[in-house]
Amino acid sequence: MLFKNKYYKEINPLKYGVIIEKEGGNLYSEKSKFQKVEIFKSTGLGNVLTLDGLMMTSVEDEFFYHEMIAHIPLNSHKNPKNVLVIGGGDGGTVREVLKHSSVENVDLCEIDSLVIEASKKFLPTISSKLDDSRVKIYVEDAIKFIKDKKNCYDVVLIDSTDPMGPGVGLFTEEFYNNVKESLREGGIVTPQSESPFANKNEMRNMYILLHKVFNTVMPYCGPIPTYPGGYWSFAFCSNDENNQIKDINRAKEIEKISKLYNTDLHYGVFMVPNFVRKLAENE
Amino acid sequence: MLFKNKYYKEINPLKYGVIIEKEGGNLYSEKSKFQKVEIFKSTGLGNVLTLDGLMMTSVEDEFFYHEMIAHIPLNSHKNPKNVLVIGGGDGGTVREVLKHSSVENVDLCEIDSLVIEASKKFLPTISSKLDDSRVKIYVEDAIKFIKDKKNCYDVVLIDSTDPMGPGVGLFTEEFYNNVKESLREGGIVTPQSESPFANKNEMRNMYILLHKVFNTVMPYCGPIPTYPGGYWSFAFCSNDENNQIKDINRAKEIEKISKLYNTDLHYGVFMVPNFVRKLAENE
Repeated sequence: MLFKNKYYKEINPLKYGVIIEKEGGNLYSEKSKFQKVEIFKSTGLGNVLTLDGLMMTSVEDEFFYHEMIAHIPLNSHKNPKNVLVIGGGDGGTVREVLKHSSVENVDLCEIDSLVIEASKKFLPTISSKLDDSRVKIYVEDAIKFIKDKKNCYDVVLIDSTDPMGPGVGLFTEEFYNNVKESLREGGIVTPQSESPFANKNEMRNMYILLHKVFNTVMPYCGPIPTYPGGYWSFAFCSNDENNQIKDINRAKEIEKISKLYNTDLHYGVFMVPNFVRKLAENE
Repeated sequence: MLFKNKYYKEINPLKYGVIIEKEGGNLYSEKSKFQKVEIFKSTGLGNVLTLDGLMMTSVEDEFFYHEMIAHIPLNSHKNPKNVLVIGGGDGGTVREVLKHSSVENVDLCEIDSLVIEASKKFLPTISSKLDDSRVKIYVEDAIKFIKDKKNCYDVVLIDSTDPMGPGVGLFTEEFYNNVKESLREGGIVTPQSESPFANKNEMRNMYILLHKVFNTVMPYCGPIPTYPGGYWSFAFCSNDENNQIKDINRAKEIEKISKLYNTDLHYGVFMVPNFVRKLAENE
């Protein structure tokens, strides 16, 4: 069985994808107000979550994405206590955030309750911390949710789908401005920022907007085998913070329990290829 | 049309691959003594070379591999004059090597003349420097070729296929020892060292052998969208040299004309994930 990102197919001549062999029927298949949510067992990658047929996460390779989106911004913050995760209803990002001993509260704002329900049932290693007492789940549209949040978060992680369907409003200047206002002093925002190879235009457009809103906008990249092109980018954004490791002891603790993250990699991921620099530069 | 690395399929449960849409019939299709050599036009990736149906290189994404295998070791050498490329009959590695102004001679040792012939005809942007006066082409088995080469090369790049078929003998301790003896003082060897995600066992076995032969063995990694897992490793090997940039002016010249390489990336690629460190460590 083959899953391709149909969106990329439309906008990009490169037809990348990953071959995932489905074993048996769907474990979960429901249509929500927003999208079709499916989970099935795969050969080799464990259970796989798709939204509208697009690959979202798999048990075997989810650590690439979740460690990258969480540990780089959190270890660049002196003392992250209050964290917001937008999207990410599978719970993988929340799980990584909670590995930081400083974190006291994680708000998860996911628009689609079925993603949470399906993940709790069929992706237990990914959703394992969604019932943690430090987590508050808001099944809401993040565009509305963020509007009245002022000066509350240390780190905001935007674990969104691509700029299509329910995710479109998460890629606008207005939204980024509201996210900025939700930050405390020293706050950091990191959205996933698409594939620098498989969808250059979307990535470029996103960085143009981010540069309008934040003083510091730095791309960082890493491998994600099941995503188009196998290589993904994230944006480190802040008005008053750099990407240096702030608490080396906490970072070393994270390194010990990670498959990917280490304190060298923390810096290495920012040393991006020339073509990524160009896509992310401030005009 | 779908190309998967059949070898990985046999040994690894993960069934990665890249979807490449073929346009029209083959531009080239010949059976040599060693393998089936084919070139076809693809949608989006330009012309594609396959050996025994396995993806080797495409016009659009070849720069990832060829810049990585060439510029990291060459810029870590003070003054590389004499370079050997083993395999790499498509000419991409030779082309990148010749961008270094210090290089006076490149020996290319490719076992299969049809790979060279096909690449010259149908991959002109990749094979563009095979007729350069600094290049000597040897259509020979590198295992035999290397045996009487003592103290001649500054850099040896092993641009091999995977450890199967004609490539098997390029993954042995005896071969690596002969390569070591072919080096001048300060010499550097870099073989491609397989995918750390799609074929862990082969990578691990390779590093065990390399550590037996060389004092310094460091993995470095980068994205290659059309290879299994989308992420590839290379081994920086030497007995008396480190991976620091030795001639910053030459490195900056290379940066100016590269899609991938820059002097930050030179260091970033060595800052590898924990699971890659483990695969490459000395027991």
